[in-house]
Amino acid sequence: MTNMQGWSTSSGHCRAGRRRYTVLGTGLMGAAIAKRLALSGATVSAWNRSYGRSKPLVADGVVVFEHLNDCLQEPGTLILSVLDYDSASSLLQDHVAQLQGRDVINLITGTPAEAHEFAAFLSACGVGYLDGAIEAYPSDIGQPDAAIMFAGDRRVWDTHRDALLAIGGASQFVGGGPGAANVLDAALAGTFLNSSLGAACEAIAFLSAAGIDLRDPAVDFDYWIDLLRSEIHELVRALEADDFVTTTATLAVYAAAVRQWRAAAIAAGVRASMLSANLNNLERAESAGLGAQALAAQVRTMFTELGE
Amino acid sequence: MTNMQGWSTSSGHCRAGRRRYTVLGTGLMGAAIAKRLALSGATVSAWNRSYGRSKPLVADGVVVFEHLNDCLQEPGTLILSVLDYDSASSLLQDHVAQLQGRDVINLITGTPAEAHEFAAFLSACGVGYLDGAIEAYPSDIGQPDAAIMFAGDRRVWDTHRDALLAIGGASQFVGGGPGAANVLDAALAGTFLNSSLGAACEAIAFLSAAGIDLRDPAVDFDYWIDLLRSEIHELVRALEADDFVTTTATLAVYAAAVRQWRAAAIAAGVRASMLSANLNNLERAESAGLGAQALAAQVRTMFTELGE
Repeated sequence: MTNMQGWSTSSGHCRAGRRRYTVLGTGLMGAAIAKRLALSGATVSAWNRSYGRSKPLVADGVVVFEHLNDCLQEPGTLILSVLDYDSASSLLQDHVAQLQGRDVINLITGTPAEAHEFAAFLSACGVGYLDGAIEAYPSDIGQPDAAIMFAGDRRVWDTHRDALLAIGGASQFVGGGPGAANVLDAALAGTFLNSSLGAACEAIAFLSAAGIDLRDPAVDFDYWIDLLRSEIHELVRALEADDFVTTTATLAVYAAAVRQWRAAAIAAGVRASMLSANLNNLERAESAGLGAQALAAQVRTMFTELGE
Repeated sequence: MTNMQGWSTSSGHCRAGRRRYTVLGTGLMGAAIAKRLALSGATVSAWNRSYGRSKPLVADGVVVFEHLNDCLQEPGTLILSVLDYDSASSLLQDHVAQLQGRDVINLITGTPAEAHEFAAFLSACGVGYLDGAIEAYPSDIGQPDAAIMFAGDRRVWDTHRDALLAIGGASQFVGGGPGAANVLDAALAGTFLNSSLGAACEAIAFLSAAGIDLRDPAVDFDYWIDLLRSEIHELVRALEADDFVTTTATLAVYAAAVRQWRAAAIAAGVRASMLSANLNNLERAESAGLGAQALAAQVRTMFTELGE
């Protein structure tokens, strides 16, 4: 431990029951996490490929190491915050002996397949594995509404729950395999949130092309977000109940409206990519005979097995 | 007025200043509007192509006519709630003399181009024209949060403001030409809201394909809708200020994430149309050299003049 900086690691041993965490990767996110864990009373050590980036953490009570091998001499739970799954694998595969019996909490976000592969590798090393997906910015770490979704070994979640809630107050464990957090990330942050932001941008381009100022009081996105919320609740209700009877507007009525909206957007000089993709989905559902059902019925024709 | 039913039209004349409205088209929406106007104290007459559909309105104090010509003998402001702009044009073109000097409030939703054409036709008939787009279901008519956007002749809005707010409490007049209400409808209800609902459906299909139950507490759309709201506020702020500097994630970082999310969705067995359209938009913005800017910068490459 010749390269150890800051607090002596022995200080951790003096406090019975105090948890020990080792953060690998102290970029913006890893540094925020290490700092937060130290603040919450845990004993925290850290390593970063570029030693200089981890050194400022000494001021926060984090023990920083220049060499990974030295850092892994420390006992305790590993928290991974390096660039991606590939970096994590290549980092750890030379240190398999030092992983045995540890818990590993991976906060790298990637695909569900990467999570499954990495979980299999670590499981072969005798590791308890938790796979997290962080739905917050580094500046949100430690806030009550910062969400991290965790999947994998429930025992690891139960053991480290307090520390993980200290990192993100809205964190939760999700059912399913080790890839489930990444699925939720890809489905909710990726498919829902990011596509909706793209749709908002396309709407703004349309308004601009038609000469309507974004500052016009009638351009009130909050009104439409409130409607979106109630219509999504209705979608979820219909899908949970498997009940696609509608008394308001059928899927065919929506398809006709989207066809007209898309024509208007194109006439105004907008490419209308999101409108076109949405229309394509609705027309596919219509072709499958779902035109008289509620909008939510389109979910049934979104799978490649059925659609193609 | 031999075909007049219900209240005598003369009752309207007895109350000074009482407004007179004639609703053409009493489907679900037109009937709700006629009923609401009568409730608010106006003198209301109505006509529907199928006479039988308008007759129940007699119980609400509406004077119903079997023949359009008789109905148009009544003075007062016309409210149009027929199927589409074409139906309205063909209905009115044989009655041009009876339109002279009237106000016409059109509640048919269509394209901006249809609104412009119809406004030109009516303007030649000496009509004051207001073009509305209803953003509510018939059952919401009369509610404080029911929104109808109106464009066209501001004088007509000012004259009938109280009656129009009685129909939809969140109604407003928007700047721009007679097509502006239809533009707002196509941009906000069409491009933003309906595409976002399509994205929510795609997210749900993805979760389902990956074996995650919609009832899992981690599938919390409200959390993501709250995030969407704050990110849209950020988009609007960036566009209004023409400031695309970001301290969180650049457009290129989002594009890389969407590429990965899309690959995960396809691997799970989902067509990923919305993700693909969104990725296409982001890559187009990257190709235009906007990768280091904020997500909102993509708006600049959504126009056909620039993109193609």
